[in-house]
Amino acid sequence: MASTESPTAAAAEADAADSKAVISKKAAKKEAAKAEKLRRQQEAAAAAAAAAAAAEEADPLATNYGDVPLVDLQSKAVSGRTWTPLARLEAELKDQSVLVRGRAHNVRAVGKNMTFLVLRERGYTVQCVLTVSLELVSRQMVKFASGLSRESIVDVEGVVTVPSSPIKGTTQQVEIQVRKIYCISRSAANLPINIEDASRSEAEFERAEQTGGQLVRVGQDTRLNYRVLDIRTPANLGIFCIQCQVSNKFKEFLLLEDFIEIHTPKLIAGSSEGGSAVFKLDYKGQPACLAQSPQHHKQMAICGDFGRVFEVGPVFRAEDSYTHRHLCEFTGLDVEMEIKEHYSEVMDIVDRLFVAMFDHLNQNCQKELDAIRRQYPFEPLKYLPKTLRLTFQEGVQMLQEAGIEIDLLGDLNTESERKLGQLVLEKYNTEFYMLHRYPLAVRPFYTMPCYDEPAYSNSFDVFIRGEGLPSLYSEEIISGAQRVHVPEFLSARAEACGINVSTISSYIDSFRYGSPPHGGFGVGLERVVMLFCALNNIRKTSLFPRDPQRLTP
Amino acid sequence: MASTESPTAAAAEADAADSKAVISKKAAKKEAAKAEKLRRQQEAAAAAAAAAAAAEEADPLATNYGDVPLVDLQSKAVSGRTWTPLARLEAELKDQSVLVRGRAHNVRAVGKNMTFLVLRERGYTVQCVLTVSLELVSRQMVKFASGLSRESIVDVEGVVTVPSSPIKGTTQQVEIQVRKIYCISRSAANLPINIEDASRSEAEFERAEQTGGQLVRVGQDTRLNYRVLDIRTPANLGIFCIQCQVSNKFKEFLLLEDFIEIHTPKLIAGSSEGGSAVFKLDYKGQPACLAQSPQHHKQMAICGDFGRVFEVGPVFRAEDSYTHRHLCEFTGLDVEMEIKEHYSEVMDIVDRLFVAMFDHLNQNCQKELDAIRRQYPFEPLKYLPKTLRLTFQEGVQMLQEAGIEIDLLGDLNTESERKLGQLVLEKYNTEFYMLHRYPLAVRPFYTMPCYDEPAYSNSFDVFIRGEGLPSLYSEEIISGAQRVHVPEFLSARAEACGINVSTISSYIDSFRYGSPPHGGFGVGLERVVMLFCALNNIRKTSLFPRDPQRLTP
Repeated sequence: MASTESPTAAAAEADAADSKAVISKKAAKKEAAKAEKLRRQQEAAAAAAAAAAAAEEADPLATNYGDVPLVDLQSKAVSGRTWTPLARLEAELKDQSVLVRGRAHNVRAVGKNMTFLVLRERGYTVQCVLTVSLELVSRQMVKFASGLSRESIVDVEGVVTVPSSPIKGTTQQVEIQVRKIYCISRSAANLPINIEDASRSEAEFERAEQTGGQLVRVGQDTRLNYRVLDIRTPANLGIFCIQCQVSNKFKEFLLLEDFIEIHTPKLIAGSSEGGSAVFKLDYKGQPACLAQSPQHHKQMAICGDFGRVFEVGPVFRAEDSYTHRHLCEFTGLDVEMEIKEHYSEVMDIVDRLFVAMFDHLNQNCQKELDAIRRQYPFEPLKYLPKTLRLTFQEGVQMLQEAGIEIDLLGDLNTESERKLGQLVLEKYNTEFYMLHRYPLAVRPFYTMPCYDEPAYSNSFDVFIRGEGLPSLYSEEIISGAQRVHVPEFLSARAEACGINVSTISSYIDSFRYGSPPHGGFGVGLERVVMLFCALNNIRKTSLFPRDPQRLTP
Repeated sequence: MASTESPTAAAAEADAADSKAVISKKAAKKEAAKAEKLRRQQEAAAAAAAAAAAAEEADPLATNYGDVPLVDLQSKAVSGRTWTPLARLEAELKDQSVLVRGRAHNVRAVGKNMTFLVLRERGYTVQCVLTVSLELVSRQMVKFASGLSRESIVDVEGVVTVPSSPIKGTTQQVEIQVRKIYCISRSAANLPINIEDASRSEAEFERAEQTGGQLVRVGQDTRLNYRVLDIRTPANLGIFCIQCQVSNKFKEFLLLEDFIEIHTPKLIAGSSEGGSAVFKLDYKGQPACLAQSPQHHKQMAICGDFGRVFEVGPVFRAEDSYTHRHLCEFTGLDVEMEIKEHYSEVMDIVDRLFVAMFDHLNQNCQKELDAIRRQYPFEPLKYLPKTLRLTFQEGVQMLQEAGIEIDLLGDLNTESERKLGQLVLEKYNTEFYMLHRYPLAVRPFYTMPCYDEPAYSNSFDVFIRGEGLPSLYSEEIISGAQRVHVPEFLSARAEACGINVSTISSYIDSFRYGSPPHGGFGVGLERVVMLFCALNNIRKTSLFPRDPQRLTP
């Protein structure tokens, strides 16, 4: 069957010739002969089609391809076969037979005898080749492969070959000569998001525009609506690997420093911090709300002799902010620790922890960072081996010297934060620094005032370069302080801040039975990833983001 | 001043002698003389008291003790001093000067010249001795120490000595001869819970009862109401260290097996699993609820090519169960992974993960386990290097052979679970085993049926010994399964289970774009700790437990 043209195509050709004929007496006879010829051709074509169909049914290689029926995917047997991860497909496997499972990333038929199938697995891609050949690959098998819908899950068995010239468009520089191919799960033919479209960088769009080409741009909302497709892009897989590394390094570092991981309740009776909006709910007839931070409970753990604690868990903010950096639910990385003398002990932990984390990401996660960078280019974060510390007043002075007037007892607004980031970058060559001794008035009631100037506080914020290129911006990423550990003083501070002390009495009472001086800090996991990678939207670093308008998927 | 008796004591002695006097003429004169003597004595006493007061004010050692004023605890300075952790106070520090910070665990004055102060830090205790001596320790200093309320935070500077006989009642076998002592934070004198009372084992109560003594028993509710005191007991510190180790080992093991840690939203639009009660809330005008498990989202991560994922996070159950093993909020350890052929791949992970975890706890956490065991005695968990796997039918057969009739297509009730645990322990000598191929009808709708018997499913539960001694009980601790990955079949299964498919359409839709066969499991962190340590109540292993009646602290 290998090189026979389709009989219906031949018939169509005959029909086309027919329509051009001119009727005459002589021609009529000729026509009759022609009609007879056509009839015979049609008969032959029908016979050939029947023969082809019979041959297709009887394809001796028919068991080497096809859709796997569900029953065979219901844990029918353990065959003992091993699937080679695509990442391990290297030249050293040349001539070896391998079994792989991946997604049909791209399917391209070349004539009827050849199909190229690019498989994808966790960001790795490999080209699989089906070429019709006697006893190995039938034409029907090639046709089956070429009919696979993109994103289908496919098992391929074949032999590894190493082409003489580099393969463009796949991560792996080997090919698989396919011997068997089975579809495990067929994707819908019409994808709401094409992975290739969703993977394009801004530079690709610009190049296409310059050459008059048109590329499909996938909007943020479409991405989030079809997040199961969107997160398949190499950049997104990279982002969530980096997120995993950040929280893992956070834990690893703190465990080595004698911290204990705790889990505090998210369902609480009062509002966890005064002021901000909380999500309220009914708890078995009692009014309750979702914790806006583990602040009170992590401090209670310190009063409970845990010494040093940390938590990784969701925090909930019912704020109406619809910005690039706010979410209604995010992952908080929280730390609280006894301090012996000075809140600088907390800043020391922040310093060493984040420098160790950034070092780790740069040293061990280049593959993931590159995957992100290919779609969303960014420069490596500039940070110092020992993090720069400026007092709030020093920061204000730098801004004043640059001609910006700042309220000495107010907070920095976004604009002045960014300007200060720029000044710090110019002067100290770092995009990561701490600002401490904030005005007391702009910090939460439980913040310890300075011993010498009660209008200031033993508190700090940490800034990191903001999104975008060039990154002249600077955003607050970590907030921390020494806490008030004296119950009477804490009550007084709460009152002074307009908080109804009776609503937080169990919190205040927890300091009545001896409380060590202590401090801590909190940071949002999604923000660390966003700003380390200079991404422009926190929705890119939250797996299933929640904002005032989005509660699904 | 060192060895002078108090002048008021001398005056009192004189008074006492006076009352015994008999009045007579001769005696009257004598009496007058005596009165004059007394007057002189009183004068002398007053003068001495004045002198003493002056001396107290002028105590040349006055700067060596006292309450630290708040201003000195507001990060006034970094002195560069180092505090030695109590845990490191060993004989090798003999004759060295150390600075320590801890709680006043116990204070005992012996006469006026000596005070013993036991300091406690993270479960370690050390005896500090104050003996009046010229130029080192004044009587006022001893008095100050003896007046410290229990649980106050205290800084002590002193010299390490090694007594010739073992010290009873402290973990550290050295003493500190105090040179300086400062109170950092004074505890309220009346403690709602005495740490010693809260630390007693059942055996201590029994011994006290036998000898007619009476000990204060601290009830569960009192403990939870004053959790900041309750968690200071050695057993509780041990429990939360073990909890930290369990979740850390869980992560460490899975990261090495190529799993990615994810964070899925707790605020969701529908109910995460049909049936059970959920906490409902208003989300910016939309009806929302708290996730009862990360089930759907972790599966979506698998559809998003993450391959293998895990999550450690809160799960919420609005159930009204008021049992020893249910909480309204607990920490879920969740796993989801692609499977190539068989749900046994998931069971393999469970097996290796938990055996590695138990090995780690037994090998590296003996100190913490001993601290728990001293208050709540338990035998080491019996488990096999390769976890026993029985099919549900095999389990039913074992029960039937023991004379217990079981519905072959129903679930095991608590009683039969416990009986089976006992039979398994007797036959296989393990308190940790898996039961798989459960009846389909008793599993969630997304569970994959068996290929050969559709009334059964590719699911499993893992059982561990229950609470109490002797531990004949057995409790379900882990639940897992292969999931249905075919959207049409999933819809049909949901409908068959009475679920309104439209409420879970985004979940079902996530399988339409190619979905690898996959499975996973979930386990409650608090239950693992509770049952590994054979504790009798899950409230003991939750830092701030939430049950239908408890929303604070």
